[in-house]
Parts: sequence; structure tokens; C-alpha cells
Amino acid sequence: MGSGLTLTEKLFKGKLGRVPERGEIAVVPVDLVYAHDGTFTLALEVMKKTQLLDRIFDPDKVALFIDHAAPPPTVAAAMVHEVMRRFARERGVRFYDVGTGICHQVVADEALARPGMFIVGADSHTVTGGAFAAFATGVGSTDAAVAMATGKIWLRVPEQVRVRLSGEPPGYIMGKDIVLSIIGKVGSDGMIYKAAEFQGEGLKSISMDSRMTISNMSVEMGAKVGLFPSDDVTVEWFRGVHGLEVPRLEPDPGADYDDELEVELPSLEPVVAAPPNVDNVKPVREVEGVEVNQVFIGSCTNGRYEDYVAAARILKGRRVKEGVRCIAIPASRKVYERLLRNGVIDILVKAGCFVAFGTCGPCIGAHLGLLGEGEVAVSTSNRNFPGRMGHKDSRIYLASPATAAAAAATGRITDPRELLPPDARLMVVDPSYSYKP
Amino acid sequence: MGSGLTLTEKLFKGKLGRVPERGEIAVVPVDLVYAHDGTFTLALEVMKKTQLLDRIFDPDKVALFIDHAAPPPTVAAAMVHEVMRRFARERGVRFYDVGTGICHQVVADEALARPGMFIVGADSHTVTGGAFAAFATGVGSTDAAVAMATGKIWLRVPEQVRVRLSGEPPGYIMGKDIVLSIIGKVGSDGMIYKAAEFQGEGLKSISMDSRMTISNMSVEMGAKVGLFPSDDVTVEWFRGVHGLEVPRLEPDPGADYDDELEVELPSLEPVVAAPPNVDNVKPVREVEGVEVNQVFIGSCTNGRYEDYVAAARILKGRRVKEGVRCIAIPASRKVYERLLRNGVIDILVKAGCFVAFGTCGPCIGAHLGLLGEGEVAVSTSNRNFPGRMGHKDSRIYLASPATAAAAAATGRITDPRELLPPDARLMVVDPSYSYKP
Repeated sequence: MGSGLTLTEKLFKGKLGRVPERGEIAVVPVDLVYAHDGTFTLALEVMKKTQLLDRIFDPDKVALFIDHAAPPPTVAAAMVHEVMRRFARERGVRFYDVGTGICHQVVADEALARPGMFIVGADSHTVTGGAFAAFATGVGSTDAAVAMATGKIWLRVPEQVRVRLSGEPPGYIMGKDIVLSIIGKVGSDGMIYKAAEFQGEGLKSISMDSRMTISNMSVEMGAKVGLFPSDDVTVEWFRGVHGLEVPRLEPDPGADYDDELEVELPSLEPVVAAPPNVDNVKPVREVEGVEVNQVFIGSCTNGRYEDYVAAARILKGRRVKEGVRCIAIPASRKVYERLLRNGVIDILVKAGCFVAFGTCGPCIGAHLGLLGEGEVAVSTSNRNFPGRMGHKDSRIYLASPATAAAAAATGRITDPRELLPPDARLMVVDPSYSYKP
Repeated sequence: MGSGLTLTEKLFKGKLGRVPERGEIAVVPVDLVYAHDGTFTLALEVMKKTQLLDRIFDPDKVALFIDHAAPPPTVAAAMVHEVMRRFARERGVRFYDVGTGICHQVVADEALARPGMFIVGADSHTVTGGAFAAFATGVGSTDAAVAMATGKIWLRVPEQVRVRLSGEPPGYIMGKDIVLSIIGKVGSDGMIYKAAEFQGEGLKSISMDSRMTISNMSVEMGAKVGLFPSDDVTVEWFRGVHGLEVPRLEPDPGADYDDELEVELPSLEPVVAAPPNVDNVKPVREVEGVEVNQVFIGSCTNGRYEDYVAAARILKGRRVKEGVRCIAIPASRKVYERLLRNGVIDILVKAGCFVAFGTCGPCIGAHLGLLGEGEVAVSTSNRNFPGRMGHKDSRIYLASPATAAAAAATGRITDPRELLPPDARLMVVDPSYSYKP
């Protein structure tokens, strides 16, 4: 047994006033609970059936997002959106309409996730908030409905795994390569109901955008939460982006973990998760040459500023290969505006990309880029099981935005190192960084 | 009987070497024949059934466009696109993939329609090409297939109507107000199988963008073609935009028309086509105050530079009203790029619009903004029959981009004159004009 507390323990202690046992069922007050157009109507059904309909514990801590299919691609979607709009108007909860962005990104854009918070969302990628040292996790619509009414969530206190990131990653490595490499190592069930705590000297090279990617995909190895500490990078980010002072929040040096994993960042190389499983991870060079029909750069996993700058570094002065559709959908209006200001949208459009913003779109096969029979996509999104983005006989390679952009330029899977400037550093920690094309 | 020829007669004479009788069935060589993802598969069926499959009369004069639902919102759409891609590759015809733009706009962007040409497209709004003094008209997929194989089309030589535009329009009037006013006057069946020839001193105030809108909606009163002469405005536009010299092509002064219509431009005011018919045209002021759920600025009718500049003049410094979704989809990548350079996209996004480009989208209820039950849209598109944009019990008001933007800003139908700068001139004839926000 070590002495001192893990980050997970500190977060629970912050809410409960005591450190709970692992495995204990704790009831914890939440700082934010949210749902979107893919899950809210189920939550609403639960509210109706359980007489929770008239209770909202705190409208300021409840948020609804229209993001899964926005603007509505079907009449049914339009009608779900209208139900949400009416509910939000009547209950005064936070509401983010068509075009604002994907929920997990807007949570970051609006600083709704901050160190020490507990956050639940009716979406599995709510874990994205772990990047901000918040215990953020996805729950079912039923639990979300109860949390909206009561302000509380039950949680089994998870086992805790230290993921130690050592050394400095090569400049061409992005958060996506890091998290895919980890998933490849532990498997898609390697962290079921565990808290993954990312630590080590490597953290200082990992930008907030990439941390969000890593936390986001923690759920793809089953993790309940993917936690980063609130360190210098975090504090500077909140200060620079939001003008907010947030507390440092880190595990104690001697904290006791159930398991430990070591990732040597310097040895990483660009990887893909090849179909049909997220843990079928291989170096890009092993699948080079596979012909590609669609490239998607976006989603809650990789729809951020850093992601499109990486793509622009490859696509500037190049053209998307004939016959390939390259779809770039920044995760939120705020991200899109920043890219617009810095000339990144211009580069993407000149290269031949289709550009929109603020919708999950093709990631979930909702709209804006479905795959036909036999088609192959390189996608920066998070899941590659058969049928996820369209036809059951289409194939998805998950990859970083750099790898995706390289595929767009050449029409086949290509190691991004072949097209990147040799000095490119794709993860940029400085929150005031702005790309100069 | 007058002496001299109409523009229609001159166009036929240019191809046939003689002036055909009205009502005669003429077989005319075509300069361009095209289809899109909504019609091509039917044409392909015809080719298969009639052994026309291996004949393409001239690949350079045949074009396929992916525009109706791009990027594909369904697996079925993705598969249609792939069929087209393969056909285009195998036959060497012109091919415009996802994101390039709506066919009728790309025809203008690429100068595929020029004075004196005959053009047929498997889409009713092919008439848009009439703005360039081309006999451009929509045909069924069968006729398009035959034209692709043989390079010829049969046409009954239409009756000809002179639409004389007199005087100078007020600055707040756009092509959409002009054509809706005409449709309101003659009715949706007022020009069936006739050639509408737009003439008069008013033409010199009507920009190419607005001419395209007017030609485009000529089919909404049944016209076979909506023809503008090739005049100073046309010649300057081809010179300025494409660096091309095109011939002047105008009707003779004493030409003989079957009918005549007078439109006094100075007396026009902003109008809408209220649901449920395109000829249910009323001044905006008569329907002011109707609450709006969605505003759509786009389509082959109004997805051009001038259209978004008009919207920007209203939305600059304003916000889209809460609860309203405002969807701006420039008709092509080229239009979007120009708007990007001039800061117009920035204004629209800051105001709260959702922005994409190069798809018909909500106009045809394909994706990116369908209407739910009871919802109301103000749309710059071309048809407002029940169900066109979604639920059969939704309602569509067709209007100019200025009127649409005014509705977006206020959340209800609003006369754009209330929000426009008093000196605004929305139709800009100078092809080198660039908006300074």
C-alpha cells in the first residue's frame, strides 16, 4: 500500500468529504448533467414515467445539445429537436441549438468542465471531460434523467490504473496515436470500469486538444473515466482560453494504484485502428497503400483546432485525390471560427475538402458522408465496427488527422511522415498558439 | 407581324441554319447535356435498356454532378455516387464530385453555358442557363440519356413572350423579388412551354447573379426557357469572371412575339411566395410577423455571391434569433471561396448561421435542415408545395436572401427594408465588385 491519494480518490473526497473504498457504491452530487438529440428523448420518457418531469435540480447545471444530426437530416430529427427546444425553454436549462457544436466540445468551449467536477452525460464520450481533471463519464438515459432531477449520480468507485507517459513524443505524434497505441496494447476490454489516470513527465508535451482525444477514447478500452491531472498545461489553458484560474489537482506521489501501464512516448509512431475493431491497432506503414474512398476529419475525438492545423500542414498546396471525398467538420462553431481567422478553412477548401461544422455527422452514420458497400474510410472518429459509418460491408481505419489528411492527398493510406514538414510539431501546448500558413 | 427575329429564333437559327416555325418539332444538336445524383441512375437504366450504354457523343459535352445530397446522407446515396464516379471514369465525361457544387451553379462557375448554346439537363432548373443567352432547359432522364448518346435533343419550338422590364429597381430589390412578382402575376401555369425573353432598359440594372435567379424560376411559371440576351452586362461578366470574349446576342427590335408582359421595376417591393403555392405571391409587409423556425439561404435559385452579401448586410452585427436555425449553403465551392475571401462567411458564422456548401440540401428535403410538423421556413429556394422541405404540415415562404436574413434576425417574417442600410443596392452588376464588410 502506498501513502497519499490518487487523483480519482481526491475527486471523490472533494465531493464526499472522505475517501471511499474501491468498489463502494457512492452517491455523488454532479456539477453538470447533459444529453443530446440522440439520447434526450429516452431521458424524457423516463422523466414522464417516474414523475421526475417537473424537477430540475439546477437548470444552470443541466444542458441539452443538438449535435448528433444537425441541421436535421430527417423529419423525425427535426421533431426531436423541437421537443428539446421546448423543454429547454420551459425549464430554463442550458440549450445549445443547431450549429453550436458537438456536446463534448461545447463543454470545453464554454468551460463547463473544470478540475474537481463530477459530470455525467447521456453519451459514452462524456469521458472527454477527464482531460480537465473532472470525473466525467457517460451514463444511460435513465441515469441522466434521474441526475437532472436530483443532482446526484450513483457510481461504483472504480479500480485505478496509472498510465505513465514517459519521455517526449516525436513531432508527428498526436494524441490519437497515443491513445490508439494504448488501446492496441490493452485491448478494447482492457480497462472495463477502471479509472485510467494519465501521468508522467510526458504530459508536459501533450496539449489540451490531444488530452481531450485521449480522454475521449479511454471509453474505447472500457474505462469509466480517463483522467488527466490539472497541471501547468491545464492551468495555462484555462487562463489563456477562458481567463479562468483553476486549481492544480494532481495525484500524490505515493498513491496506490491497482495497476500500472508504461507508455514510452519517444518510441511511438503513427498508427491506425484497422477494421473491424478499435483495438486492431497497427503502424500506418503496415497498411500503407490501401485505397480510400472517404476521409473524415472531425467528431468529438478529433474535431479541434490542433487537428485541422495538422491536416492543413499536409493539405496546404496539395489537392485531395480525385475520387476521394474529404469531409472536414470542426466540432463546434467556436473551433470553426478560430480556424477561419487563421486561414485553415481556406487551406482545406482550396485543397478540395467539403467543410461544415458542429455535427457528429458521418462518425455515427447520421449524415454528411455515409459509406457505400465496399467503401473504405480513414476517419479521425472513435469507432470502426462494421456499419458504424454506413454499409455493413464498408471498412473504417481510425487514425490521427495527420494520417487522415495524408490519405486524402494520396488516395491511399499513407504514413503522414512522408508528407509532413520534418520539423512539424503537431501537438501544441501553448494555448495562445496560432497557425501561420 | 414584326420584322426581325426574336432571341429564341436566333438561337434556333444558329443551330439549324434556318428559322423554324413555332410549334415545329426541331431536332437540335446540344452543346452540353448533364445529370445529377437525383436523376442519373434513371438515365443509366435507359442507356442499358436501349443499347445506348456504349455511346457518348462527346465526353467533353457530357457532365455528371453530385449535388443533390452531398456528402451522402444515406448508404443508398453513397452507392449512387459511386456508380456515377465509375461511369465518369470509364467514359471520360466531365465529373463534379461531392463538394464542387450544385450543377446549375457549376455550369456558371466553369463557363459551360455561353451565348448561343443549346443545353439540356436532367433537372428542371437547367433553365438557369438562360441567363447566359443559352437555350437551356430541363428534360427527363430518358431524353438526357438519348442526348448523351446522340448529341441531339428534340424540342417543340416554343411560343415566345417578351417580358419587358422597364425602369430601375429600388436598391432593396433582388432578382428573386422580380421573378416572384412575375410568377404572382401570370400564375404557375402562365408560361407553359413558352420561351420567356427578358428585355428592356431594366436589364442594365440586373446582375448576372440575379439573372440566374430569374431564369432559374422561369420554370416555376412553366416556361420552357427563361432567356436573357447577351448584352453589356453579359459580355462584361464573361470578360471579368472568366476572361472570355462572348458574342452579343439580342433580339431584333421589330421581332414578333406571341405575347408581351410589362414589369415596372421601380414599383416593385419585397415579396414572398406564401404557402402552399409558388404563385401565392404577396408583399412581405402583408405577412409580417409570422413566426419562423428555419431560414434557408441557398439552392440553385439563390446560392450565389450577391445573395450572401445581401444576407450579410442584414446579419452583420446582428444575431440569428434564438430558437431559429439559419442555414447558409453557398451553391458551390467557388462561391464559398469568394465569400470566404471577402469576410462574408465570417459575418454569417458570427451571426449564428450554420454554413456548409455545394449541396441542394434542405431545398429538396434531402438533408441539412428538414422541417418538422407545423414548422415554418423562410427559404430562398424555388418550391413551396406541402412537404417539399420535410413534413407535409410544414409551411414554406419563398423569398429573397434579404428577406430571409431579416427573418433570421428577428425570428418572424420581416420586411428587409426595416434592417437594410437605406443606401443598399443588392444587385451589383459589376463583376469585379467585392463586398467590404
